[in-house]
Amino acid sequence: MSNEPIGIFDSGIGGLTVVKEVRRLLPSENIIYLGDTARVPYGIRSAETVTKYSFECAEFLIKKGIKLLVVACNTVSAVSLYEIKKIASIPAVGVIEPGANAAVGSTRNKKIGVIGTETTIKSSAYKKAINILDSDIEVFGLPCPLFVPLVEEGLIEGDIARLIAKQYLGTFRDSKADTLVLGCTHYPLLKDVIQEVMGNVKLIDSATETAKVVRDILKGQESMNKEGGRLKFYVTDSPERFVAVGERFLQSRIEDIERISL
Amino acid sequence: MSNEPIGIFDSGIGGLTVVKEVRRLLPSENIIYLGDTARVPYGIRSAETVTKYSFECAEFLIKKGIKLLVVACNTVSAVSLYEIKKIASIPAVGVIEPGANAAVGSTRNKKIGVIGTETTIKSSAYKKAINILDSDIEVFGLPCPLFVPLVEEGLIEGDIARLIAKQYLGTFRDSKADTLVLGCTHYPLLKDVIQEVMGNVKLIDSATETAKVVRDILKGQESMNKEGGRLKFYVTDSPERFVAVGERFLQSRIEDIERISL
Repeated sequence: MSNEPIGIFDSGIGGLTVVKEVRRLLPSENIIYLGDTARVPYGIRSAETVTKYSFECAEFLIKKGIKLLVVACNTVSAVSLYEIKKIASIPAVGVIEPGANAAVGSTRNKKIGVIGTETTIKSSAYKKAINILDSDIEVFGLPCPLFVPLVEEGLIEGDIARLIAKQYLGTFRDSKADTLVLGCTHYPLLKDVIQEVMGNVKLIDSATETAKVVRDILKGQESMNKEGGRLKFYVTDSPERFVAVGERFLQSRIEDIERISL
Repeated sequence: MSNEPIGIFDSGIGGLTVVKEVRRLLPSENIIYLGDTARVPYGIRSAETVTKYSFECAEFLIKKGIKLLVVACNTVSAVSLYEIKKIASIPAVGVIEPGANAAVGSTRNKKIGVIGTETTIKSSAYKKAINILDSDIEVFGLPCPLFVPLVEEGLIEGDIARLIAKQYLGTFRDSKADTLVLGCTHYPLLKDVIQEVMGNVKLIDSATETAKVVRDILKGQESMNKEGGRLKFYVTDSPERFVAVGERFLQSRIEDIERISL
Protein backbone atom coordinates (compact mmCIF):
# COMPACT_ATOMS: atom_id res chain seq x y z
CA MET A 1 0.00 0.00 0.00
CA SER A 2 2.97 2.32 0.56
CA ASN A 3 3.28 3.15 -3.14
CA GLU A 4 -0.29 4.36 -3.46
CA PRO A 5 -0.76 8.10 -3.60
CA ILE A 6 -2.20 10.44 -1.00
CA GLY A 7 -5.36 12.17 -2.30
CA ILE A 8 -5.85 15.83 -1.39
CA PHE A 9 -8.73 18.03 -2.45
CA ASP A 10 -9.98 21.58 -2.02
CA SER A 11 -12.59 23.80 -3.62
CA GLY A 12 -9.81 25.42 -5.60
CA ILE A 13 -6.26 26.59 -5.09
CA GLY A 14 -6.08 27.07 -1.32
CA GLY A 15 -5.41 23.41 -0.53
CA LEU A 16 -2.03 23.75 -2.21
CA THR A 17 -0.75 25.23 1.08
CA VAL A 18 -1.49 21.79 2.56
CA VAL A 19 0.22 20.04 -0.39
CA LYS A 20 3.28 22.21 0.18
CA GLU A 21 3.50 21.21 3.86
CA VAL A 22 2.88 17.50 3.16
CA ARG A 23 5.65 17.61 0.54
CA ARG A 24 7.99 19.26 3.02
CA LEU A 25 7.43 16.54 5.64
CA LEU A 26 6.97 13.61 3.23
CA PRO A 27 8.94 14.32 0.05
CA SER A 28 8.77 10.70 -1.13
CA GLU A 29 4.99 10.48 -1.23
CA ASN A 30 3.03 10.56 -4.48
CA ILE A 31 0.21 13.08 -4.28
CA ILE A 32 -2.96 13.48 -6.35
CA TYR A 33 -4.59 16.87 -5.93
CA LEU A 34 -8.08 17.84 -7.03
CA GLY A 35 -9.21 21.48 -7.15
CA ASP A 36 -12.91 21.98 -7.92
CA THR A 37 -12.17 25.24 -9.72
CA ALA A 38 -15.40 25.24 -11.76
CA ARG A 39 -17.37 25.68 -8.52
CA VAL A 40 -14.94 27.53 -6.24
CA PRO A 41 -15.44 29.16 -3.72
CA TYR A 42 -17.25 26.81 -1.34
CA GLY A 43 -17.00 29.24 1.60
CA ILE A 44 -20.01 31.32 0.55
CA ARG A 45 -22.28 28.34 -0.26
CA SER A 46 -24.81 26.57 1.94
CA ALA A 47 -23.78 23.51 3.95
CA GLU A 48 -26.02 21.34 1.76
CA THR A 49 -24.33 22.45 -1.48
CA VAL A 50 -20.85 22.11 0.03
CA THR A 51 -21.69 18.54 1.13
CA LYS A 52 -22.86 17.57 -2.36
CA TYR A 53 -19.79 19.02 -4.10
CA SER A 54 -17.33 17.59 -1.58
CA PHE A 55 -18.77 14.06 -1.93
CA GLU A 56 -18.12 14.23 -5.66
CA CYS A 57 -14.51 15.29 -5.01
CA ALA A 58 -13.93 12.57 -2.42
CA GLU A 59 -15.40 9.86 -4.67
CA PHE A 60 -13.22 10.93 -7.59
CA LEU A 61 -10.04 10.61 -5.53
CA ILE A 62 -11.04 7.37 -3.80
CA LYS A 63 -11.60 5.76 -7.21
CA LYS A 64 -8.01 6.65 -8.08
CA GLY A 65 -6.83 4.16 -5.42
CA ILE A 66 -5.42 6.53 -2.81
CA LYS A 67 -4.22 5.28 0.57
CA LEU A 68 -5.28 8.36 2.54
CA LEU A 69 -7.64 11.27 1.87
CA VAL A 70 -6.90 14.82 2.99
CA VAL A 71 -9.78 17.30 2.96
CA ALA A 72 -7.62 20.40 2.50
CA CYS A 73 -10.53 22.80 2.76
CA ASN A 74 -11.72 24.28 6.02
CA THR A 75 -15.26 24.75 4.75
CA VAL A 76 -15.61 21.07 3.79
CA SER A 77 -13.84 19.91 6.96
CA ALA A 78 -16.34 22.03 8.91
CA VAL A 79 -19.53 20.82 7.27
CA SER A 80 -19.09 17.36 5.71
CA LEU A 81 -15.92 15.58 6.88
CA TYR A 82 -17.89 13.31 9.18
CA GLU A 83 -20.09 12.11 6.28
CA ILE A 84 -17.06 11.71 4.00
CA LYS A 85 -15.39 9.52 6.64
CA LYS A 86 -18.45 7.28 6.59
CA ILE A 87 -18.20 6.57 2.85
CA ALA A 88 -14.40 6.24 2.78
CA SER A 89 -12.73 2.89 3.45
CA ILE A 90 -9.40 4.67 3.93
CA PRO A 91 -8.40 7.23 6.59
CA ALA A 92 -9.74 10.74 5.92
CA VAL A 93 -8.09 13.76 7.53
CA GLY A 94 -9.53 17.28 7.69
CA VAL A 95 -7.81 20.53 8.58
CA ILE A 96 -9.95 21.58 11.55
CA GLU A 97 -8.97 19.05 14.22
CA PRO A 98 -5.20 19.44 13.64
CA GLY A 99 -5.58 23.23 13.87
CA ALA A 100 -7.79 23.00 16.95
CA ASN A 101 -5.33 20.64 18.70
CA ALA A 102 -2.42 22.96 18.06
CA ALA A 103 -4.40 25.99 19.25
CA VAL A 104 -5.34 24.27 22.51
CA GLY A 105 -1.68 23.35 23.03
CA SER A 106 -0.65 26.95 22.42
CA THR A 107 -3.05 29.10 24.45
CA ARG A 108 -2.02 30.17 27.94
CA ASN A 109 -4.97 32.41 28.80
CA LYS A 110 -7.62 30.07 27.34
CA LYS A 111 -8.77 32.59 24.74
CA ILE A 112 -8.49 31.58 21.07
CA GLY A 113 -9.46 33.55 17.98
CA VAL A 114 -10.45 31.79 14.74
CA ILE A 115 -10.67 33.43 11.31
CA GLY A 116 -12.13 31.73 8.22
CA THR A 117 -14.79 31.88 5.53
CA GLU A 118 -18.41 32.72 6.33
CA THR A 119 -19.51 29.07 6.19
CA THR A 120 -16.61 27.81 8.32
CA ILE A 121 -17.20 30.38 11.05
CA LYS A 122 -20.97 29.91 10.94
CA SER A 123 -20.51 26.15 11.45
CA SER A 124 -18.65 26.76 14.75
CA ALA A 125 -16.55 23.71 13.83
CA TYR A 126 -13.34 25.09 15.38
CA LYS A 127 -15.18 26.12 18.55
CA LYS A 128 -16.65 22.63 18.89
CA ALA A 129 -13.31 20.89 18.21
CA ILE A 130 -11.53 23.17 20.72
CA ASN A 131 -14.18 22.80 23.43
CA ILE A 132 -14.15 18.99 23.16
CA LEU A 133 -10.50 19.20 24.23
CA ASP A 134 -11.02 21.90 26.86
CA SER A 135 -14.47 23.25 27.60
CA ASP A 136 -13.07 26.21 29.57
CA ILE A 137 -11.53 27.83 26.49
CA GLU A 138 -13.32 30.86 25.06
CA VAL A 139 -13.38 30.87 21.25
CA PHE A 140 -13.92 34.02 19.16
CA GLY A 141 -14.82 33.37 15.52
CA LEU A 142 -14.67 35.95 12.73
CA PRO A 143 -15.27 35.60 8.97
CA CYS A 144 -12.77 37.52 6.78
CA PRO A 145 -14.29 37.17 3.29
CA LEU A 146 -11.92 39.60 1.55
CA PHE A 147 -8.82 37.60 2.46
CA VAL A 148 -9.42 34.91 -0.19
CA PRO A 149 -9.74 37.28 -3.19
CA LEU A 150 -6.85 39.31 -1.79
CA VAL A 151 -4.57 36.27 -1.79
CA GLU A 152 -5.78 35.06 -5.19
CA GLU A 153 -4.91 38.48 -6.61
CA GLY A 154 -1.43 38.23 -5.09
CA LEU A 155 -1.99 41.26 -2.81
CA ILE A 156 -0.38 39.56 0.17
CA GLU A 157 1.58 42.60 1.34
CA GLY A 158 1.32 46.36 1.06
CA ASP A 159 -1.22 48.98 2.11
CA ILE A 160 -4.40 47.27 0.92
CA ALA A 161 -3.64 43.98 2.67
CA ARG A 162 -2.63 45.80 5.86
CA LEU A 163 -5.74 48.01 5.89
CA ILE A 164 -8.10 45.09 5.34
CA ALA A 165 -6.31 43.01 8.00
CA LYS A 166 -6.55 45.91 10.47
CA GLN A 167 -10.24 46.37 9.77
CA TYR A 168 -11.03 42.70 10.36
CA LEU A 169 -8.62 41.87 13.15
CA GLY A 170 -9.28 44.99 15.21
CA THR A 171 -12.27 43.01 16.48
CA PHE A 172 -9.93 40.70 18.40
CA ARG A 173 -8.31 43.50 20.42
CA ASP A 174 -10.94 43.36 23.18
CA SER A 175 -11.01 39.57 23.28
CA LYS A 176 -7.37 39.37 24.45
CA ALA A 177 -6.93 36.04 22.64
CA ASP A 178 -3.28 34.92 22.77
CA THR A 179 -3.69 32.45 19.87
CA LEU A 180 -5.23 32.92 16.43
CA VAL A 181 -6.13 30.01 14.11
CA LEU A 182 -5.79 30.71 10.38
CA GLY A 183 -8.91 28.69 9.58
CA CYS A 184 -8.75 28.92 5.79
CA THR A 185 -6.09 27.41 3.55
CA HIS A 186 -5.56 30.75 1.80
CA TYR A 187 -4.65 32.63 4.95
CA PRO A 188 -1.10 31.33 5.51
CA LEU A 189 -0.08 33.48 2.54
CA LEU A 190 -1.13 36.54 4.57
CA LYS A 191 0.76 35.36 7.66
CA ASP A 192 3.24 38.25 7.70
CA VAL A 193 0.56 40.94 7.48
CA ILE A 194 -1.65 39.18 10.04
CA GLN A 195 1.26 38.77 12.45
CA GLU A 196 2.16 42.46 12.05
CA VAL A 197 -1.41 43.53 12.86
CA MET A 198 -1.93 41.03 15.71
CA GLY A 199 1.43 41.70 17.37
CA ASN A 200 2.38 39.22 20.07
CA VAL A 201 -0.23 36.56 19.26
CA LYS A 202 0.63 32.99 18.28
CA LEU A 203 -0.66 32.12 14.78
CA ILE A 204 -1.76 28.54 14.10
CA ASP A 205 -1.43 27.36 10.52
CA SER A 206 -3.77 24.40 9.95
CA ALA A 207 -1.82 23.33 6.85
CA THR A 208 1.34 22.66 8.87
CA GLU A 209 -0.59 20.86 11.59
CA THR A 210 -2.51 18.72 9.09
CA ALA A 211 0.72 17.61 7.40
CA LYS A 212 1.99 16.36 10.77
CA VAL A 213 -1.18 14.30 11.26
CA VAL A 214 -0.78 12.79 7.78
CA ARG A 215 2.80 11.81 8.60
CA ASP A 216 1.75 10.25 11.92
CA ILE A 217 -1.03 8.16 10.32
CA LEU A 218 1.24 6.83 7.58
CA LYS A 219 3.94 6.06 10.13
CA GLY A 220 1.42 4.26 12.35
CA GLN A 221 0.18 2.21 9.41
CA GLU A 222 3.71 1.56 8.17
CA SER A 223 2.59 2.72 4.75
CA MET A 224 5.14 5.46 4.05
CA ASN A 225 6.50 5.65 0.55
CA LYS A 226 10.24 5.54 0.02
CA GLU A 227 10.61 6.07 -3.69
CA GLY A 228 7.77 8.30 -4.94
CA GLY A 229 7.51 12.07 -4.95
CA ARG A 230 5.29 12.63 -7.98
CA LEU A 231 2.58 15.30 -8.09
CA LYS A 232 -0.52 14.99 -10.25
CA PHE A 233 -3.17 17.71 -10.43
CA TYR A 234 -6.81 17.60 -11.54
CA VAL A 235 -9.03 20.66 -11.94
CA THR A 236 -12.66 21.10 -13.02
CA ASP A 237 -12.12 24.34 -14.97
CA SER A 238 -9.40 25.39 -17.38
CA PRO A 239 -5.94 24.82 -15.82
CA GLU A 240 -4.52 28.20 -16.90
CA ARG A 241 -5.52 30.32 -13.91
CA PHE A 242 -4.91 27.43 -11.46
CA VAL A 243 -1.31 27.10 -12.63
CA ALA A 244 -0.64 30.85 -12.60
CA VAL A 245 -1.99 31.46 -9.10
CA GLY A 246 -1.24 27.98 -7.73
CA GLU A 247 2.51 28.14 -8.24
CA ARG A 248 2.58 31.01 -5.72
CA PHE A 249 0.82 28.79 -3.17
CA LEU A 250 2.90 25.72 -3.83
CA GLN A 251 6.17 27.59 -4.33
CA SER A 252 7.11 25.17 -7.06
CA ARG A 253 6.07 24.33 -10.64
CA ILE A 254 2.72 22.76 -11.54
CA GLU A 255 3.30 20.53 -14.54
CA ASP A 256 1.23 17.35 -14.69
CA ILE A 257 -2.29 18.79 -14.76
CA GLU A 258 -5.54 17.57 -16.32
CA ARG A 259 -9.04 18.97 -16.58
CA ILE A 260 -11.94 16.69 -15.56
CA SER A 261 -15.72 16.88 -15.04
CA LEU A 262 -17.37 15.90 -11.77
CA MET B 1 -47.83 38.41 -24.96
CA SER B 2 -47.74 41.62 -22.92
CA ASN B 3 -48.59 39.83 -19.67
CA GLU B 4 -45.71 37.41 -19.93
CA PRO B 5 -42.74 38.12 -17.69
CA ILE B 6 -39.30 39.40 -18.58
CA GLY B 7 -36.59 36.85 -17.68
CA ILE B 8 -33.33 38.16 -16.24
CA PHE B 9 -30.36 36.08 -15.11
CA ASP B 10 -26.93 36.53 -13.68
CA SER B 11 -24.30 34.32 -12.07
CA GLY B 12 -25.46 35.62 -8.71
CA ILE B 13 -26.55 38.85 -7.11
CA GLY B 14 -25.02 41.46 -9.43
CA GLY B 15 -27.80 41.32 -12.03
CA LEU B 16 -30.14 42.83 -9.46
CA THR B 17 -28.72 46.25 -10.43
CA VAL B 18 -30.27 45.59 -13.86
CA VAL B 19 -33.57 44.46 -12.27
CA LYS B 20 -33.61 47.70 -10.27
CA GLU B 21 -33.21 49.83 -13.43
CA VAL B 22 -35.77 47.81 -15.42
CA ARG B 23 -38.25 48.23 -12.55
CA ARG B 24 -37.61 51.97 -12.48
CA LEU B 25 -38.34 52.35 -16.21
CA LEU B 26 -41.01 49.64 -16.47
CA PRO B 27 -42.75 49.32 -13.10
CA SER B 28 -45.70 47.37 -14.56
CA GLU B 29 -43.64 44.48 -15.93
CA ASN B 30 -43.53 41.09 -14.25
CA ILE B 31 -39.94 39.93 -13.81
CA ILE B 32 -38.48 36.48 -13.19
CA TYR B 33 -34.89 36.59 -11.96
CA LEU B 34 -32.48 33.66 -11.78
CA GLY B 35 -29.22 33.88 -9.84
CA ASP B 36 -26.90 30.86 -10.25
CA THR B 37 -25.60 31.29 -6.72
CA ALA B 38 -24.38 27.69 -6.39
CA ARG B 39 -21.76 28.40 -9.09
CA VAL B 40 -21.10 32.12 -8.71
CA PRO B 41 -18.75 33.83 -9.65
CA TYR B 42 -18.55 33.26 -13.40
CA GLY B 43 -15.92 36.00 -13.89
CA ILE B 44 -12.99 33.78 -12.91
CA ARG B 45 -14.07 30.72 -14.96
CA SER B 46 -13.09 29.72 -18.47
CA ALA B 47 -15.24 30.78 -21.43
CA GLU B 48 -16.22 27.14 -21.99
CA THR B 49 -17.53 26.71 -18.45
CA VAL B 50 -19.33 30.07 -18.53
CA THR B 51 -21.05 29.03 -21.79
CA LYS B 52 -22.25 25.74 -20.31
CA TYR B 53 -23.62 27.34 -17.14
CA SER B 54 -25.27 30.25 -18.97
CA PHE B 55 -27.09 27.93 -21.38
CA GLU B 56 -28.63 26.14 -18.43
CA CYS B 57 -29.79 29.47 -16.99
CA ALA B 58 -31.23 30.67 -20.31
CA GLU B 59 -33.09 27.40 -20.88
CA PHE B 60 -34.60 27.50 -17.40
CA LEU B 61 -36.05 30.98 -17.97
CA ILE B 62 -37.20 30.33 -21.55
CA LYS B 63 -39.19 27.32 -20.30
CA LYS B 64 -41.00 29.65 -17.89
CA GLY B 65 -42.59 31.40 -20.89
CA ILE B 66 -40.82 34.75 -20.83
CA LYS B 67 -41.29 37.34 -23.59
CA LEU B 68 -37.74 38.72 -23.43
CA LEU B 69 -34.46 37.49 -21.98
CA VAL B 70 -31.93 39.80 -20.32
CA VAL B 71 -28.44 38.44 -19.76
CA ALA B 72 -27.63 40.68 -16.79
CA CYS B 73 -24.07 39.45 -16.48
CA ASN B 74 -21.17 41.06 -18.28
CA THR B 75 -19.15 37.85 -18.32
CA VAL B 76 -21.94 35.87 -20.02
CA SER B 77 -22.74 38.76 -22.37
CA ALA B 78 -19.05 38.81 -23.30
CA VAL B 79 -18.59 35.12 -23.99
CA SER B 80 -21.89 33.41 -24.86
CA LEU B 81 -24.67 35.90 -25.70
CA TYR B 82 -24.34 35.19 -29.41
CA GLU B 83 -24.90 31.45 -28.85
CA ILE B 84 -27.79 32.11 -26.45
CA LYS B 85 -29.46 34.28 -29.10
CA LYS B 86 -29.26 31.35 -31.49
CA ILE B 87 -31.23 29.00 -29.19
CA ALA B 88 -33.76 31.63 -28.05
CA SER B 89 -36.95 32.23 -30.02
CA ILE B 90 -37.50 35.48 -28.11
CA PRO B 91 -35.32 38.63 -28.08
CA ALA B 92 -32.20 38.32 -25.89
CA VAL B 93 -30.43 41.43 -24.60
CA GLY B 94 -26.97 41.55 -23.05
CA VAL B 95 -25.35 44.34 -21.06
CA ILE B 96 -22.29 44.95 -23.25
CA GLU B 97 -23.79 46.53 -26.36
CA PRO B 98 -25.95 49.02 -24.43
CA GLY B 99 -22.90 50.04 -22.37
CA ALA B 100 -20.68 50.27 -25.46
CA ASN B 101 -23.27 52.42 -27.30
CA ALA B 102 -23.54 54.85 -24.41
CA ALA B 103 -19.75 55.07 -24.07
CA VAL B 104 -19.30 55.86 -27.76
CA GLY B 105 -21.98 58.56 -27.42
CA SER B 106 -20.19 60.04 -24.42
CA THR B 107 -16.51 60.19 -25.37
CA ARG B 108 -15.14 63.43 -26.81
CA ASN B 109 -11.45 62.48 -27.06
CA LYS B 110 -12.09 58.96 -28.39
CA LYS B 111 -10.48 57.27 -25.39
CA ILE B 112 -12.64 54.91 -23.31
CA GLY B 113 -11.68 52.88 -20.25
CA VAL B 114 -13.49 49.65 -19.39
CA ILE B 115 -13.35 47.86 -16.02
CA GLY B 116 -14.77 44.39 -15.40
CA THR B 117 -14.00 40.83 -14.30
CA GLU B 118 -10.97 38.96 -15.60
CA THR B 119 -12.99 36.96 -18.12
CA THR B 120 -14.91 40.01 -19.41
CA ILE B 121 -11.76 42.04 -19.98
CA LYS B 122 -9.88 39.08 -21.47
CA SER B 123 -12.70 38.60 -23.99
CA SER B 124 -12.24 42.17 -25.33
CA ALA B 125 -16.02 42.21 -25.82
CA TYR B 126 -16.40 45.91 -24.97
CA LYS B 127 -13.46 46.85 -27.20
CA LYS B 128 -15.00 44.92 -30.10
CA ALA B 129 -18.48 46.41 -29.54
CA ILE B 130 -17.04 49.93 -29.30
CA ASN B 131 -14.79 49.56 -32.35
CA ILE B 132 -17.67 48.27 -34.50
CA LEU B 133 -19.31 51.64 -33.86
CA ASP B 134 -16.14 53.70 -34.23
CA SER B 135 -12.86 52.07 -35.13
CA ASP B 136 -10.86 55.20 -34.20
CA ILE B 137 -11.67 54.89 -30.51
CA GLU B 138 -8.91 53.64 -28.24
CA VAL B 139 -10.17 51.24 -25.56
CA PHE B 140 -8.27 50.52 -22.34
CA GLY B 141 -9.47 47.42 -20.45
CA LEU B 142 -8.64 46.59 -16.85
CA PRO B 143 -9.82 43.73 -14.62
CA CYS B 144 -10.67 44.77 -11.02
CA PRO B 145 -11.23 41.41 -9.29
CA LEU B 146 -11.47 42.79 -5.75
CA PHE B 147 -14.45 45.01 -6.55
CA VAL B 148 -16.95 42.12 -6.53
CA PRO B 149 -16.08 40.75 -3.07
CA LEU B 150 -15.84 44.33 -1.81
CA VAL B 151 -19.41 45.06 -2.89
CA GLU B 152 -20.72 41.71 -1.66
CA GLU B 153 -19.26 42.50 1.75
CA GLY B 154 -20.98 45.89 1.75
CA LEU B 155 -17.67 47.80 1.79
CA ILE B 156 -18.84 50.31 -0.81
CA GLU B 157 -17.40 53.37 0.90
CA GLY B 158 -14.60 54.15 3.34
CA ASP B 159 -10.83 53.76 3.32
CA ILE B 160 -10.59 50.19 2.03
CA ALA B 161 -12.83 50.82 -0.99
CA ARG B 162 -11.01 54.08 -1.77
CA LEU B 163 -7.56 52.52 -1.52
CA ILE B 164 -8.45 49.57 -3.74
CA ALA B 165 -10.11 51.88 -6.28
CA LYS B 166 -7.02 54.12 -6.31
CA GLN B 167 -4.73 51.15 -6.81
CA TYR B 168 -6.73 49.81 -9.77
CA LEU B 169 -7.81 53.04 -11.42
CA GLY B 170 -4.45 54.78 -11.17
CA THR B 171 -3.65 52.80 -14.32
CA PHE B 172 -6.05 54.98 -16.30
CA ARG B 173 -4.28 58.24 -15.43
CA ASP B 174 -1.88 57.99 -18.37
CA SER B 175 -4.57 56.85 -20.81
CA LYS B 176 -6.47 60.16 -20.52
CA ALA B 177 -9.78 58.36 -21.14
CA ASP B 178 -12.73 60.74 -20.67
CA THR B 179 -15.27 57.92 -20.27
CA LEU B 180 -15.20 54.81 -18.08
CA VAL B 181 -17.56 51.85 -18.54
CA LEU B 182 -18.54 50.01 -15.36
CA GLY B 183 -18.41 46.64 -17.11
CA CYS B 184 -19.65 44.48 -14.25
CA THR B 185 -23.09 44.57 -12.66
CA HIS B 186 -21.59 44.88 -9.19
CA TYR B 187 -19.69 48.06 -9.93
CA PRO B 188 -22.56 50.59 -9.91
CA LEU B 189 -22.64 50.15 -6.13
CA LEU B 190 -19.09 51.56 -6.05
CA LYS B 191 -20.01 54.49 -8.31
CA ASP B 192 -19.36 57.19 -5.70
CA VAL B 193 -15.88 55.93 -4.82
CA ILE B 194 -14.97 55.37 -8.47
CA GLN B 195 -16.18 58.85 -9.43
CA GLU B 196 -14.16 60.36 -6.57
CA VAL B 197 -10.98 58.60 -7.70
CA MET B 198 -11.52 59.24 -11.43
CA GLY B 199 -12.46 62.92 -11.04
CA ASN B 200 -13.88 64.50 -14.16
CA VAL B 201 -14.55 61.30 -16.12
CA LYS B 202 -18.00 60.23 -17.33
CA LEU B 203 -19.06 56.88 -15.84
CA ILE B 204 -21.25 54.58 -17.94
CA ASP B 205 -23.51 52.23 -16.02
CA SER B 206 -24.47 49.29 -18.25
CA ALA B 207 -27.47 48.46 -16.05
CA THR B 208 -29.15 51.80 -16.81
CA GLU B 209 -28.39 51.53 -20.52
CA THR B 210 -29.65 47.95 -20.71
CA ALA B 211 -32.95 48.90 -19.09
CA LYS B 212 -33.45 51.53 -21.81
CA VAL B 213 -32.90 48.91 -24.54
CA VAL B 214 -35.41 46.57 -22.86
CA ARG B 215 -37.99 49.39 -22.82
CA ASP B 216 -37.35 50.20 -26.49
CA ILE B 217 -37.76 46.56 -27.59
CA LEU B 218 -41.02 46.09 -25.69
CA LYS B 219 -42.33 49.41 -27.05
CA GLY B 220 -41.36 48.39 -30.59
CA GLN B 221 -43.13 45.05 -30.20
CA GLU B 222 -46.11 46.66 -28.52
CA SER B 223 -45.77 44.08 -25.77
CA MET B 224 -45.55 46.32 -22.72
CA ASN B 225 -47.43 45.21 -19.65
CA LYS B 226 -49.91 47.58 -18.04
CA GLU B 227 -51.02 45.70 -14.96
CA GLY B 228 -48.16 43.55 -13.67
CA GLY B 229 -45.27 44.50 -11.46
CA ARG B 230 -44.57 41.18 -9.74
CA LEU B 231 -41.06 39.98 -8.94
CA LYS B 232 -40.17 36.29 -8.65
CA PHE B 233 -36.66 35.08 -7.77
CA TYR B 234 -34.96 31.73 -8.29
CA VAL B 235 -31.55 30.81 -6.89
CA THR B 236 -29.45 27.64 -7.10
CA ASP B 237 -28.09 27.81 -3.55
CA SER B 238 -29.76 28.61 -0.23
CA PRO B 239 -31.71 31.92 -0.52
CA GLU B 240 -30.48 33.29 2.82
CA ARG B 241 -27.34 35.08 1.66
CA PHE B 242 -28.94 36.16 -1.63
CA VAL B 243 -31.73 37.94 0.22
CA ALA B 244 -29.40 39.58 2.75
CA VAL B 245 -26.96 40.95 0.18
CA GLY B 246 -29.45 41.30 -2.67
CA GLU B 247 -31.74 43.73 -0.92
CA ARG B 248 -28.85 46.21 -0.90
CA PHE B 249 -28.53 45.83 -4.68
CA LEU B 250 -32.24 46.02 -5.40
CA GLN B 251 -32.98 48.65 -2.79
CA SER B 252 -36.25 46.90 -2.01
CA ARG B 253 -37.46 43.69 -0.36
CA ILE B 254 -36.91 40.21 -1.85
CA GLU B 255 -39.88 38.11 -0.88
CA ASP B 256 -41.02 35.55 -3.45
CA ILE B 257 -37.89 33.39 -3.74
CA GLU B 258 -37.37 29.71 -4.50
CA ARG B 259 -34.36 27.42 -4.66
CA ILE B 260 -33.95 25.26 -7.76
CA SER B 261 -31.37 22.89 -9.33
CA LEU B 262 -29.98 23.41 -12.82
